[in-house]
Amino acid sequence: MIVVRTVADLRTALRESRAGRIGFVATMGALHEGHASLLRAARADSDTVVMSIFVNPTQFDEQADLAAYPRTEEADLALAAAEGVDVVFAPSAGEMYPAGFATTVSVTGPVAETLEGAQRGRAHFDGVATVVTKLLLAVLPDAAYFGAKDAQQVGVLRRLVADLNIPVQLVVCPTSRDDDGLARSSRNARLGADERARALAIPRALQEVADASASGIRDPEVLRGRALDVLAEALIELEYIAIVDPVSFEPVAAVDGQALVAIAARVGRTRLIDNTLLTPGGP
Amino acid sequence: MIVVRTVADLRTALRESRAGRIGFVATMGALHEGHASLLRAARADSDTVVMSIFVNPTQFDEQADLAAYPRTEEADLALAAAEGVDVVFAPSAGEMYPAGFATTVSVTGPVAETLEGAQRGRAHFDGVATVVTKLLLAVLPDAAYFGAKDAQQVGVLRRLVADLNIPVQLVVCPTSRDDDGLARSSRNARLGADERARALAIPRALQEVADASASGIRDPEVLRGRALDVLAEALIELEYIAIVDPVSFEPVAAVDGQALVAIAARVGRTRLIDNTLLTPGGP
Repeated sequence: MIVVRTVADLRTALRESRAGRIGFVATMGALHEGHASLLRAARADSDTVVMSIFVNPTQFDEQADLAAYPRTEEADLALAAAEGVDVVFAPSAGEMYPAGFATTVSVTGPVAETLEGAQRGRAHFDGVATVVTKLLLAVLPDAAYFGAKDAQQVGVLRRLVADLNIPVQLVVCPTSRDDDGLARSSRNARLGADERARALAIPRALQEVADASASGIRDPEVLRGRALDVLAEALIELEYIAIVDPVSFEPVAAVDGQALVAIAARVGRTRLIDNTLLTPGGP
Repeated sequence: MIVVRTVADLRTALRESRAGRIGFVATMGALHEGHASLLRAARADSDTVVMSIFVNPTQFDEQADLAAYPRTEEADLALAAAEGVDVVFAPSAGEMYPAGFATTVSVTGPVAETLEGAQRGRAHFDGVATVVTKLLLAVLPDAAYFGAKDAQQVGVLRRLVADLNIPVQLVVCPTSRDDDGLARSSRNARLGADERARALAIPRALQEVADASASGIRDPEVLRGRALDVLAEALIELEYIAIVDPVSFEPVAAVDGQALVAIAARVGRTRLIDNTLLTPGGP
């Protein structure tokens, strides 16, 4: 496994790999089993696996969150090597945003402006869209692997990849969960034991909605009510729970086809998101 | 020469060409000798030459200008074939901006916000940046050829190509001029004989500034004054004359190194731009 810090070195490292298939996993480091599952999906499909580690400052809406974001490069590189990564791209902020940098990729509409876009502000998805565009064009992979947990990020990336003709296939992998059901996240490390127990209300609420949908309930307000009942017992500070079209992120009037249930909540000082896809009538 | 109308067909057409060098010229059609000179530069450097024809609606600030923009596809294809173009990409507006399209590439700072950016509005260079990003990523050329006449467009494109890591070399070719000195433009066809005679004050004014700079004058205000004297005699409606850094487009305090003199003016109903590079002490 080689580690490169500049786009120029990355391109040199990948020159011989272009004849084969390149798979790419973008990360902000602090790797856990969720990232490992993405790396395994890439490894299974690809001749060369590239992983990036970059804590992108432009997508953080809170400086405290950016400062507190865990940085564990040594352990990350060990995990990457164990999962068979060939090339790690770990640029500095100065390499990604040199003096004079002045370009933004921006997605508009509900997919970027509601839920996470509304809570975290317009700059969040602008930051995500711009950095992922840069990473995809630096690596030029055949396929890039993202987790379903960041469903709205996936929606924004699908939009910009199609709109800008970026020549990459986006592969969305299932949300990786701990045995107790909590979606894996680098932020989980901040949860105390009591907070973690309360956080489990989030996957329980999603399961409650999925069960209710499977039983034939189609009214989004009734489904949301079921989730709110579960969440209310857990003393969680709910930011939103929404049932939306999984591509456009527009609210659905009735759950007839696929719909996404998305939750964001704060447990203590830690902000968590999770979601599940409703597929009435089967996937 | 083959003509394709969709990104999918373009990629299929170029599959075998990727082993060699691909040169690309983006046009809005209405081809003239200026475009031909770009095609010849691409032809000399490349195994495969790709030309696009797309009158991009999002970069027009005036609907009347868009409606009046000449569309001459049959003649354009004949010129392209004569210049040895291999693949013409001529998409519809619906192919480039399908329903749901929601992504914008935006460059900020003086290079995008002054002069043309100020006169034509923010949407102009956003439209240029977005469509050229789409075209570059659809074609994925080794090199793309642009004319020096659109100096600020070149500045915006240099910025976004560097900022987004688009893997392409930008080649800037000298402004193509008619024998009388007028910079070639598709819009020149709209000039009446009297207007054309008056329009020649623009290249004369630029030459006057170049001569004054070569004679040692370094004060931008003095240099601008020389141009204004020439333009005043011609009854031209000047929009701006500026002397700026050719990369950042910030005004220069003194012409010590390279500086760009840029002019925009209306002659009758036709808007013309032109520029020249000052290189005191030699290029």
